[in-house]
Amino acid sequence: MDVGSLVERVLNGDRRAVARAISLVEESAPQLREIVAGLAAHTGRARIVGLTGAPGVGKSTSTSALVKALRARGESVAVLAVDPSSPFTGGALLGDRVRMQEHATDPGVYVRSMATRGHLGGLSWAAPHALRVLDAAGFSAVLVETVGVGQAEIDIAAHADTTVVLSAPGMGDGVQAGKAGVLEVADILAVNKADREGARAAVRDLRQMVAQVDREPGEWKPPVVSMAAADGEGVADLLERIDEHTEHLRSSGALRERRRARARREIEGIAVEELARRLADVHGHATLDKLADEVATGGDPYAAAETVLAALDG
Amino acid sequence: MDVGSLVERVLNGDRRAVARAISLVEESAPQLREIVAGLAAHTGRARIVGLTGAPGVGKSTSTSALVKALRARGESVAVLAVDPSSPFTGGALLGDRVRMQEHATDPGVYVRSMATRGHLGGLSWAAPHALRVLDAAGFSAVLVETVGVGQAEIDIAAHADTTVVLSAPGMGDGVQAGKAGVLEVADILAVNKADREGARAAVRDLRQMVAQVDREPGEWKPPVVSMAAADGEGVADLLERIDEHTEHLRSSGALRERRRARARREIEGIAVEELARRLADVHGHATLDKLADEVATGGDPYAAAETVLAALDG
Repeated sequence: MDVGSLVERVLNGDRRAVARAISLVEESAPQLREIVAGLAAHTGRARIVGLTGAPGVGKSTSTSALVKALRARGESVAVLAVDPSSPFTGGALLGDRVRMQEHATDPGVYVRSMATRGHLGGLSWAAPHALRVLDAAGFSAVLVETVGVGQAEIDIAAHADTTVVLSAPGMGDGVQAGKAGVLEVADILAVNKADREGARAAVRDLRQMVAQVDREPGEWKPPVVSMAAADGEGVADLLERIDEHTEHLRSSGALRERRRARARREIEGIAVEELARRLADVHGHATLDKLADEVATGGDPYAAAETVLAALDG
Repeated sequence: MDVGSLVERVLNGDRRAVARAISLVEESAPQLREIVAGLAAHTGRARIVGLTGAPGVGKSTSTSALVKALRARGESVAVLAVDPSSPFTGGALLGDRVRMQEHATDPGVYVRSMATRGHLGGLSWAAPHALRVLDAAGFSAVLVETVGVGQAEIDIAAHADTTVVLSAPGMGDGVQAGKAGVLEVADILAVNKADREGARAAVRDLRQMVAQVDREPGEWKPPVVSMAAADGEGVADLLERIDEHTEHLRSSGALRERRRARARREIEGIAVEELARRLADVHGHATLDKLADEVATGGDPYAAAETVLAALDG
């Protein structure tokens, strides 16, 4: 398929074309540049909602319940599940199988896991491209599901218009210790598994933490939602909060600000990738092997890096 | 403390100086360069063993058991626990508290968690610096413990002389799906929680997988160790395999090759960091904001990145 017709088919919402385009993102394929250029002008309509949280809080269940609620009112939904593609979890493949089941026969739902292994800049680099594909394909909502461990996943939250941070009662001290960090990225906090012991206390604690943050007048205050996604309980409430946040972003001008910041990061990501490519070209030289030998036997790595950069500039 | 005396104190194995130096690594402090230059010539003696695996396989318990075994024969041991510093797990602080307990009063053991959040290049960038500090401080063994999710942790494995990949029975399909990846990074495979159901089958499966890989004559074949680290069972066996691997690396010349590859990656990491810094300088210009606005409203991000790079070159 040539790039022009691939772009056209993505714009028509053709699933196979969407799948192909995201695969090209994963592969960092040479056609990517042309695809992005072709799709860019047709984006900006989709609402991008990030869902993140530690393993075990019920991210997939929550995402699936949210898909159902969005479908019930006729929205078309794409789910991008970002897997760190660890050799230990099996990465994207496993995720796809599990997640596809419930919505497999619904033509208004597109579910895709994306592996991001091996990119310099990882998720940060690949996510905007994939989101652009889904946005241009005409989905009104794109849910980005990421496992909440590590900087890369926090970066992903930065690509969403609205970030939902999920937690669950009984997840231990870690949640406590990290609350400051959670509050930084969360637009909405959802305590899942609300039928479990400790759920009320978890909700109360989070509300107190939210209340303690200083805010400008008119600034968004993250609501804390209690839900049991497996039973569909509280999901309508979560969706309502997401709607409110969307409305807030639009009316306050924050949406424009967020999307500008996102674009800034994307430009930076592409630039760094390009610089790394140039560096790899320099690596072709025997110089680097010689420098590496020196550093391996007690040489100064900074001095070696300087030599490499001098070669890059020249 | 000035850099000269900090370096001297690290070389004397002063713990406070070691702690300070690693903090400077975390902060990516300006003194880092001078510290690295001062320590580099005094490195290369420590044996660096990486331990990685999915959450729940018992990494901390295994590390602690291995520390005990190394101490029993009089080796001094440093443990570097690399946390992705997620806001959801609490990152380094929590880890330190938990891990320090057993060996807190032993002067021959130094335990340190390292947060790597916010670095471009993350773990890959910070690890060699921290390892250099611990190596120069005279520890005969440095254990690097990383949680096995994501590319960053696999990168860490690449910084070790010997990488031990831990698994446990009953960890589900993911382990199966990822075995090919596991085999790529593992020098030794350890099945922990060997008292659990399915442990024998797990060991057998791994051995079969190892057997199926084509090897050159004389190439290392990863042994599969069965252990129950919580009871100390199999830990002596694990240590013996590590010793054998160390001996193999030395006699085959592979140690030199690995350390050269490590140095190459480190040089590259420093160079990329420097390039990112230059990019950030360019970002100071109003240009980037303007470009970001264009991209946010449907402009081509690649074209924008090109404009940024042109400014960098100029």
